[in-house]
Amino acid sequence: MLINNFLIALEAIGVLAFALSGIIEAARKHFDVVGVVMVGAIAAFGGGTLRDVLLDRRPFFWVEQEVWVWVLLGVGVALPFFIKANHIALTERAILVPDAFGLGIFAAGGTHIALISGSTPMIAVLMGVITAVVGGVLRDVLVNEVPRAFHDHQPYAVLAFAGSWVVVLLSYLETPKSIDVLAGAGFIIVLRLLAIKFGWELKRFRFL
Amino acid sequence: MLINNFLIALEAIGVLAFALSGIIEAARKHFDVVGVVMVGAIAAFGGGTLRDVLLDRRPFFWVEQEVWVWVLLGVGVALPFFIKANHIALTERAILVPDAFGLGIFAAGGTHIALISGSTPMIAVLMGVITAVVGGVLRDVLVNEVPRAFHDHQPYAVLAFAGSWVVVLLSYLETPKSIDVLAGAGFIIVLRLLAIKFGWELKRFRFL
Amino acid sequence: MLINNFLIALEAIGVLAFALSGIIEAARKHFDVVGVVMVGAIAAFGGGTLRDVLLDRRPFFWVEQEVWVWVLLGVGVALPFFIKANHIALTERAILVPDAFGLGIFAAGGTHIALISGSTPMIAVLMGVITAVVGGVLRDVLVNEVPRAFHDHQPYAVLAFAGSWVVVLLSYLETPKSIDVLAGAGFIIVLRLLAIKFGWELKRFRFL
Repeated sequence: MLINNFLIALEAIGVLAFALSGIIEAARKHFDVVGVVMVGAIAAFGGGTLRDVLLDRRPFFWVEQEVWVWVLLGVGVALPFFIKANHIALTERAILVPDAFGLGIFAAGGTHIALISGSTPMIAVLMGVITAVVGGVLRDVLVNEVPRAFHDHQPYAVLAFAGSWVVVLLSYLETPKSIDVLAGAGFIIVLRLLAIKFGWELKRFRFL
Repeated sequence: MLINNFLIALEAIGVLAFALSGIIEAARKHFDVVGVVMVGAIAAFGGGTLRDVLLDRRPFFWVEQEVWVWVLLGVGVALPFFIKANHIALTERAILVPDAFGLGIFAAGGTHIALISGSTPMIAVLMGVITAVVGGVLRDVLVNEVPRAFHDHQPYAVLAFAGSWVVVLLSYLETPKSIDVLAGAGFIIVLRLLAIKFGWELKRFRFL
Repeated sequence: MLINNFLIALEAIGVLAFALSGIIEAARKHFDVVGVVMVGAIAAFGGGTLRDVLLDRRPFFWVEQEVWVWVLLGVGVALPFFIKANHIALTERAILVPDAFGLGIFAAGGTHIALISGSTPMIAVLMGVITAVVGGVLRDVLVNEVPRAFHDHQPYAVLAFAGSWVVVLLSYLETPKSIDVLAGAGFIIVLRLLAIKFGWELKRFRFL
């Protein structure tokens, strides 16, 4: 019960952080209110929606929890009236922490959902990574940038991948499902925060 | 009966206008015949197809009305033989009016389809906007441009959003379905034509 | 039996060639290991996955043949340690031949799958083209380039289109299914290799 409420709180933080990353990216590119709201919504819900399309699951998160659509609409419309240019760099640094929460809970939750849909371990892990990463990739494609998750040499999708395996392994131990998800999410969140703090980088290739 | 025929005519005009917008964009980027046909087809059918994937509806419009695939193939192959460079600016202005028809009928029709599939009002409105706007967004992503609907500060998706609410509200009045769609589409078309004529703009944000 | 093994071998060559094209493109853009693996996977599986989403077919190829996910992960992680900058131009030329195999087998196989799912001839041909071409289109969108298949004026998607019609026509002759696919794939592969060898080009339009 307590754990479930905690998971829901983590998820809310994650959705807001992902939406904010889309809103900021769209604002930086001088998008209008439509673009800001749409890119925010796609950053927040794109990953989970693709996962559900691939798993043939309905209803989507944002159909079931329609309140989120209203929240995003409100945030997207209101924010530009309060935000100023010098806020953007500030906000960008400030959302690194909630974004880490989003990465963890989306990856672990996505893996869990795939497992209970009958996916094999590797496919479940892929679904976890898709849930956590695809929203950001679509955000970057829509603002016409190369996806950050693919070329910034920071441990991001790699951590989602590792933490999703934690969820899979714990699922064999017959622990309660919410513990699996919490442990996987916590694993990712802690490593992601450490990676940000200490500036960890993925190995650079020799070519080019 | 008369109204239904009128709706079908509006839809045909909309499909052709959307396809033409894709063909022009692809031609401007020196795409070959394959790119011209594909971008035209995606501009015309991308929105409705994504809506149907999200609602888990089959068959798609272009599967049921296969004649449209043949028409697009024919237009895409034939057009480049007739079109000249100086036609393009001309055509672009000329398609603003049929494009407004497409915007209206796609948004109102998409909302209607989502409602009869059991969507709540907000989700139905989202589906209307997706039907009307996603084709153009995919067109712009494929020619490697920032989506026009997101940053040109013109009332476009916003009108689709408003007109989709008209369809939802009328659906509570137990008017015949075709009246709902016609009223919503008409609302959007009239406002869009006024927006073009008087150069209406969305509020610009202060930041950046 | 022999033909089936031959088709499976062709398919393996095609998947590897398509994955390699994604890996090379990602490496050229200095993507990190995550980007290299993801773009490789999407180039290899994107087309077939979209076809299956459109036809509402499950499981996907990469879910059923999970070994391919492991292979791609291995290739994506290992390759960068071995590849050097001067290998890339070399590899790019070297994969033109296996890529032609992929084009042929993906288009013919995709058409066949659509036919047995009950598609009409034109829709089946479209599904063949989607299977063969969409992976490369997504690859190019993700590395922020205009899709090569749409603007390089080489016969590529056009050959997939023509070869898919060969599969459809043969399906009326009640030949064994594997013969249909092999003939369609062979038709595409031979023409594609000739197109590369002799530098065939699609007609250039007069405009722009």
